[in-house]
Amino acid sequence: MRDVLPAEVELRDQATATILEVYRRYGFRRVETPALESIRLLARSESGENEKLIFRVLKRGERLDLASARGLDDLVDLGLRFDLTVPLARYYAHNHGDLPQPLKAVQIGPVWRAERPQKGRFRQFTQCDIDILGVASPVAEVELILATLDALLALGIERPRLRLNDRRLLAALARRCGFPEAAHGSVFIALDKLDKIGLDAVCAEIRQVGHDPAAVDRLAALLAELTAAPASLEKAAAALASELPAAVVEGLASILSTVTGEAAGRYEAVFDPALVRGMGYYTGPIFEVAHGDYGVSIAGGGRYDRMIGNLLGRDVPACGFSIGFERIVDILGRRPEAGGARRKRVAFVFDESADPRQIVAEAGRLRATGDIVSLEVRRRNFRQQLADLARWGYDWYVVFPVEGGGSPQPRPIEARTDG
Amino acid sequence: MRDVLPAEVELRDQATATILEVYRRYGFRRVETPALESIRLLARSESGENEKLIFRVLKRGERLDLASARGLDDLVDLGLRFDLTVPLARYYAHNHGDLPQPLKAVQIGPVWRAERPQKGRFRQFTQCDIDILGVASPVAEVELILATLDALLALGIERPRLRLNDRRLLAALARRCGFPEAAHGSVFIALDKLDKIGLDAVCAEIRQVGHDPAAVDRLAALLAELTAAPASLEKAAAALASELPAAVVEGLASILSTVTGEAAGRYEAVFDPALVRGMGYYTGPIFEVAHGDYGVSIAGGGRYDRMIGNLLGRDVPACGFSIGFERIVDILGRRPEAGGARRKRVAFVFDESADPRQIVAEAGRLRATGDIVSLEVRRRNFRQQLADLARWGYDWYVVFPVEGGGSPQPRPIEARTDG
Repeated sequence: MRDVLPAEVELRDQATATILEVYRRYGFRRVETPALESIRLLARSESGENEKLIFRVLKRGERLDLASARGLDDLVDLGLRFDLTVPLARYYAHNHGDLPQPLKAVQIGPVWRAERPQKGRFRQFTQCDIDILGVASPVAEVELILATLDALLALGIERPRLRLNDRRLLAALARRCGFPEAAHGSVFIALDKLDKIGLDAVCAEIRQVGHDPAAVDRLAALLAELTAAPASLEKAAAALASELPAAVVEGLASILSTVTGEAAGRYEAVFDPALVRGMGYYTGPIFEVAHGDYGVSIAGGGRYDRMIGNLLGRDVPACGFSIGFERIVDILGRRPEAGGARRKRVAFVFDESADPRQIVAEAGRLRATGDIVSLEVRRRNFRQQLADLARWGYDWYVVFPVEGGGSPQPRPIEARTDG
Repeated sequence: MRDVLPAEVELRDQATATILEVYRRYGFRRVETPALESIRLLARSESGENEKLIFRVLKRGERLDLASARGLDDLVDLGLRFDLTVPLARYYAHNHGDLPQPLKAVQIGPVWRAERPQKGRFRQFTQCDIDILGVASPVAEVELILATLDALLALGIERPRLRLNDRRLLAALARRCGFPEAAHGSVFIALDKLDKIGLDAVCAEIRQVGHDPAAVDRLAALLAELTAAPASLEKAAAALASELPAAVVEGLASILSTVTGEAAGRYEAVFDPALVRGMGYYTGPIFEVAHGDYGVSIAGGGRYDRMIGNLLGRDVPACGFSIGFERIVDILGRRPEAGGARRKRVAFVFDESADPRQIVAEAGRLRATGDIVSLEVRRRNFRQQLADLARWGYDWYVVFPVEGGGSPQPRPIEARTDG
């Protein structure tokens, strides 16, 4: 975990405001769930690796009985959420009578994972998700994708590149090559690395698991054919026709053509028969966004029609798209600060002989126009103080008492070029 | 803990944005600390009752050894923060080399207390603090007070009423009556209830503790004199002259006259010699804001010049003001929704025969103007669907495909008056 310094907080706040403004125009409404959830909910959520990374919270008061505890279950009742999807499913199950139907939810907030900290990854980080609960039509995917691409463009992320696939198409591909249902998981885990390690290494990995070599050979040939440029949904649909329901292809085609129709050169949207996405809970279309040569995806999502059923007792169609907020902040933070309509930042520097009522009244007048004004006690080394003020973003100053009396005129602070 | 439904999230988001905008104009910058802090920091922070209310987090991996643990200390290394002041002191001690000097910080975020939930209180709630670290001059108090009153006014809280006192004046009062230093704590705890139980009951409580009855009688007489309308700093200063340093009075007088000079009928600011404030760490001026007949204060703060020294090894003058964010949301949430410049919310209702590309293109046009547009699959019971849309805040709708083709014209949804 880490502290966030003021300049980065401002960048994060701006990014949050930009994203929320776009999502609101699409009719998404922000919901908030508590940071702590029942440990039972978190541990039974079938979220794979994440469940090992839960920060567990001790019971309190009389309910905590250290002496007679036989294991963790007796000591712990709560955990910090590790994502926003499991809490959203619980939230929907608890509150659906008080929520719009369908629910178009946006969530932005911290999650916690007890990972070994690595470069650029922290144990507390922000996730930013939109989800549509209660819509089976592909219009849900279209809204999620267009809203996310619009948000990325509004953030200044140029030409985001969307890849689209469907879990049912991947399953058809695996079946077609002769992999039994039980093998699909390990095949997809290997296939997920195609971008990084290439087709040969992927196939080697699948062979190593012990799957039928003939099936692996068929997979290699079919993937080579389907991913050869230009990859197209029509080609994949034709090759997998016997395994793939027509409705799956129609849904994908509708999403792709609608999203492409809005692109106008601002973004790309392509079908990618090898896109996997890691999470096991996806049931339909899946999608991911890349940006330039940034090595990892900056957004990802898909349809998960069965997760809410586990909590609510009846299935609710659901679909979500998550922006990698920390990655976006990383990308934006490397850019030179945008000039544009920056506000005037004025330091009112005063000593004890100044009349505080005059200073405060003048500050009030400037603040009313939207300027930033800070009152600063004059230091002995005034030159150094001006240099420090420049360093912290002040570009104007006024000295009180005003020389010769009268109305104060802000003067520019010459920014020193340190180092 | 609790879920927050969309309408309340929007109210909270608006309140947050309003507060931050005002504080920014005063030169405060937002900082963020992690939710989890070291349990040692939290437990040694001299924060009284709050330390008993910490959510404790279990160690992880190999470091968690249940079998050989002899007590909580062996099991726990982290805790959820219970306020924003202790983390800010830690943040300043860790990062002061990278922070503006003085630091004008605004924090807004969740804190956690393992309290027995009561009406209107939750175990996760939001605090909203501004603090100035590194300024000994009363200009810090003036900035904090004016910024907070401006923020409350911007939120629509009419005529907030500020009360101002000083811990050193309270100490002088107690000394003057003959209470030894060691008795001050229990005297102040009783005095803190003056508003609620009256002077007689306060004095009875102090007598019951076992303090010198003659001192209690002197306190009763002196308090009656000093709080008799009109209470004035001058009267108190004259009565306590022998016990009270002149600088304390001058500081209070300067704060009061500067703050009063800006009031212009928008707020009240008065000296209150009986104001105590609960926290033990205050060292100088203290202040609190009341609103109308709302029974509890809506903001409070004061100077705490010694807290950072405990962490940093050298004292840093510090002063803070906290808005009771949950109370503000409570007050604002009871008001009828303000009309004003609400955005158009348009539902695009469509069936399978509609062209999704046309719908999406039309939606994009409206969204570009700032309108909110949501695509909604047409339900069988269309009349009920319109009623539901009205319930969730939509006031216009368009049906696709558009009858007779051509450009769609939004029609108003007649809001049903349910119940």
